[in-house]
Amino acid sequence: MTVEEIERFMDASVPQARSFGWVLERVGDMSARVRLPVVREHLRPGDTASGPTLFALVDTAMYFAVLSEIGPQALALTTNCNINFLRRAKEGDVIADAKLLKLGQRLAVGEVFVRRAEDDAVIAHATLTYSIPPA
Amino acid sequence: MTVEEIERFMDASVPQARSFGWVLERVGDMSARVRLPVVREHLRPGDTASGPTLFALVDTAMYFAVLSEIGPQALALTTNCNINFLRRAKEGDVIADAKLLKLGQRLAVGEVFVRRAEDDAVIAHATLTYSIPPA
Amino acid sequence: MTVEEIERFMDASVPQARSFGWVLERVGDMSARVRLPVVREHLRPGDTASGPTLFALVDTAMYFAVLSEIGPQALALTTNCNINFLRRAKEGDVIADAKLLKLGQRLAVGEVFVRRAEDDAVIAHATLTYSIPPA
Amino acid sequence: MTVEEIERFMDASVPQARSFGWVLERVGDMSARVRLPVVREHLRPGDTASGPTLFALVDTAMYFAVLSEIGPQALALTTNCNINFLRRAKEGDVIADAKLLKLGQRLAVGEVFVRRAEDDAVIAHATLTYSIPPA
Repeated sequence: MTVEEIERFMDASVPQARSFGWVLERVGDMSARVRLPVVREHLRPGDTASGPTLFALVDTAMYFAVLSEIGPQALALTTNCNINFLRRAKEGDVIADAKLLKLGQRLAVGEVFVRRAEDDAVIAHATLTYSIPPA
Repeated sequence: MTVEEIERFMDASVPQARSFGWVLERVGDMSARVRLPVVREHLRPGDTASGPTLFALVDTAMYFAVLSEIGPQALALTTNCNINFLRRAKEGDVIADAKLLKLGQRLAVGEVFVRRAEDDAVIAHATLTYSIPPA
Repeated sequence: MTVEEIERFMDASVPQARSFGWVLERVGDMSARVRLPVVREHLRPGDTASGPTLFALVDTAMYFAVLSEIGPQALALTTNCNINFLRRAKEGDVIADAKLLKLGQRLAVGEVFVRRAEDDAVIAHATLTYSIPPA
Repeated sequence: MTVEEIERFMDASVPQARSFGWVLERVGDMSARVRLPVVREHLRPGDTASGPTLFALVDTAMYFAVLSEIGPQALALTTNCNINFLRRAKEGDVIADAKLLKLGQRLAVGEVFVRRAEDDAVIAHATLTYSIPPA
């Protein structure tokens, strides 16, 4: 799937998803890049992007990397996520880069780096497994 | 901290947090129980509670277990979360039980079980590490 | 499978495994208990049981819990392990208790607590996923 | 620390470590590369490198990446490891590349890729956290 196809698919299957604020910048070659403008509602005490915000971002980026390879299968589901929070991110853009490490028939495994746009520092890193529904 | 003290602390430090829908049922003895009524906006395709919803729930339950032991330290921060999604949860109540496995000076480690209220089935399990700010 | 059946199965399929030192104490009800006498060769600097020793122990305990449910399938394979090292363990016995949280057709997910025999303190906790070969 | 300094440090502090078979190929720039010739004793049923073997390898590679930055501190300890097993590895060389994502005063977080030497396929990926002893 292309960026445009994934956007249309999301609008149809998860209409509320766009309100989170992500922008899908590119997909392809087992990867996806998603930009998130971190705004006030994404912050937690300490003025840093909250855990749930960063989890939603890495999960979304991984989902797009999977969809770009397997097509519009809404029921591809996260089965595991291990996420490390490494640095703070204030308001401003962050970039999530998802890369699949393995795409099998039943499972996809990938990693996602989240970096601050302003200085490229890694603020979070996650490894995720998705279950792929039988064809 | 007691249930009432944590509720007041959250309303003061993260005013928007309550809108997520959690209800803190009890804390104490290195643990916390949080109930979440899963409503339509928490669902993803397949009509099951979304990953970000369940992540937010386990993170919140662990935060309350930590706060109940160390007091009102807003800057206790999640550094790692490993979460497994095991079964589906439709609309209805789910219960998160957080239990600290270790409470050190610098780190707290705990696990959280999320069960469907209707049949007690485990729908998610997470292990989390929190960094505790220096006193 | 019973304790005796698993012991015979291991001796036949992984003859060198017993040299690690584990003792399978019981299986059943989606669980397994394994005792390991921690000896000098299991220690790392700081005189504490090494990471690889504890990983091998939790992996073995989970394997036995899986085998006890699905029978002698040597090709049940670990696909993921998340392990937290919480306290030190000197020479002496440690006890690993594995419990399956979900046993599906393709995947088994479980957790393992490792406790010092002398004082019951949790020294490590792991969550593991096993892939189950098609029947 | 250099490759030679780490080798001397290991021989002095963990004399039995070399028997595992690792070869430290290089360190520097927050990273370490370790080669392991996978031999018969590292295999599990299915003729693939065992989980404990790969865990020991990623833990060792991460340890060397940490030591190369902080110096000879034997008590740097693994506190968390999340490892995914992605593909099989028969007898033959595998290469572990450890890279630190964050090196703080108290914690180091890094990731390790393990690849088959023959075809560069990723057979395992791990994320680890090390606790750094106070200076």
